[in-house]
Amino acid sequence: MNKLTIIKIGGNVIDDPKSLDQFLTDFAQRTEPAILVHGGGKIATQIGNKLGIEAKMVDGRRITDAETLDLVTMVYGGLTNKKIVAQLQSKGFNAIGLTGADGNVMLAKKRPVKKIDYGFVGDITADGVNTSLLQSMLNQGVNPVFGALTHDGEGHMLNTNADTIASVLAVAMSREFEVELVYCFEQPGVLSDFENKVVIPVLEPKNYQEYKDSGVINSGMIPKLDNAFDALNAGVKSVRIIQFSDLNQAEAGTLIRL
Amino acid sequence: MNKLTIIKIGGNVIDDPKSLDQFLTDFAQRTEPAILVHGGGKIATQIGNKLGIEAKMVDGRRITDAETLDLVTMVYGGLTNKKIVAQLQSKGFNAIGLTGADGNVMLAKKRPVKKIDYGFVGDITADGVNTSLLQSMLNQGVNPVFGALTHDGEGHMLNTNADTIASVLAVAMSREFEVELVYCFEQPGVLSDFENKVVIPVLEPKNYQEYKDSGVINSGMIPKLDNAFDALNAGVKSVRIIQFSDLNQAEAGTLIRL
Repeated sequence: MNKLTIIKIGGNVIDDPKSLDQFLTDFAQRTEPAILVHGGGKIATQIGNKLGIEAKMVDGRRITDAETLDLVTMVYGGLTNKKIVAQLQSKGFNAIGLTGADGNVMLAKKRPVKKIDYGFVGDITADGVNTSLLQSMLNQGVNPVFGALTHDGEGHMLNTNADTIASVLAVAMSREFEVELVYCFEQPGVLSDFENKVVIPVLEPKNYQEYKDSGVINSGMIPKLDNAFDALNAGVKSVRIIQFSDLNQAEAGTLIRL
Repeated sequence: MNKLTIIKIGGNVIDDPKSLDQFLTDFAQRTEPAILVHGGGKIATQIGNKLGIEAKMVDGRRITDAETLDLVTMVYGGLTNKKIVAQLQSKGFNAIGLTGADGNVMLAKKRPVKKIDYGFVGDITADGVNTSLLQSMLNQGVNPVFGALTHDGEGHMLNTNADTIASVLAVAMSREFEVELVYCFEQPGVLSDFENKVVIPVLEPKNYQEYKDSGVINSGMIPKLDNAFDALNAGVKSVRIIQFSDLNQAEAGTLIRL
């Protein structure tokens, strides 16, 4: 099986032009197929503020109403995505910007309204991924760069969490590739000691459970790590959580495996 | 040779949701490969106004400064492009949104500064088109939808006229396909009598010259028609200028041929 790396970056990289440029320089040095997944960073909020679009929250959860959907479609799907693609091209790395609507590569279901109406938010599973088109692009040396957007097949774009897009893509592509999923953070990995930045080098189900029981792992990390183990159980070869500046350091960060 | 239709729509279709929906319904009925090229319409100006980005003009020519480039990248490459793609998907037509940076499909040269500095504007030729990636997509039943954006290969997106993108694509793709280039207008074709909407059914070099000499053809149409004849001379099979509501009317509008 060929190798494929799926890398997710967040706002901390995107918001700082120098960090982004260094990250993309590192990313462009890869010789094996890769897919990059990004959100939009603070620029979406800044442009939203200028346009008079306020962040909508219900019970502490972010809501995507119609105007917020337009905002993220512009920023994630247009501004941020195309800037990243153009920069990668300049570094000799052939990238193609995609949302889930493009080539129907990621079909989502609009989240059903229960207690909260999240608005135009898309939930996805590996079955909704058009792996054959992605595989064809990768075979031609064209590497997808995903904005955190999907569609419902009924004419609407949908807002989908970038972490989720990365893990669902990883699971879907693991049918055809040996997939490594990499989450880039501001921290040097999953920490056992936040103050002294002590990184847990390897997380497996057993020590993960111990760290959870003893409260060593920050509660905010638990959904991300549960998600990582779910991806491994669904066929992904390995998950790595690293600092974005360590992309090409083979042993950096936390390796998560079964 | 397989047939390929390249269709350009302008703001008059994009700005009116009903017209756009009807146009995309007609477009989605096509069974042969097609590429759609669009600009951004008034929505770019409206969002620009809200963001405090004013249209910059020098000697009557529009200038693309850095903030205007961000604006058109958001709107043409994100909002308008992804809305069109999602709507086409809902109509059962597999589309993929592209700018010139994506897959390096259209490499441009930033327009040199002479009397006027046009800013981030890209000039293109058929040699800058990556026809093999486009052909591979079309072979897989995935039809490109182009926003009017290119890139310079040095990390910058560039603003490029949608009419020009359509004609350059048509010339480049005519090496592999029998290409029909269609410009959708608000008028039912090239008119010999504007008041009574009398359409010139066929324009060939000889009667085109006569119409120009007699002043029958509106001077604003001349650069477009010169451009159409250039495309024919460079290998495009036929050019048609039609009203956007007549897309599937075989005999509608003005047919331009050698």
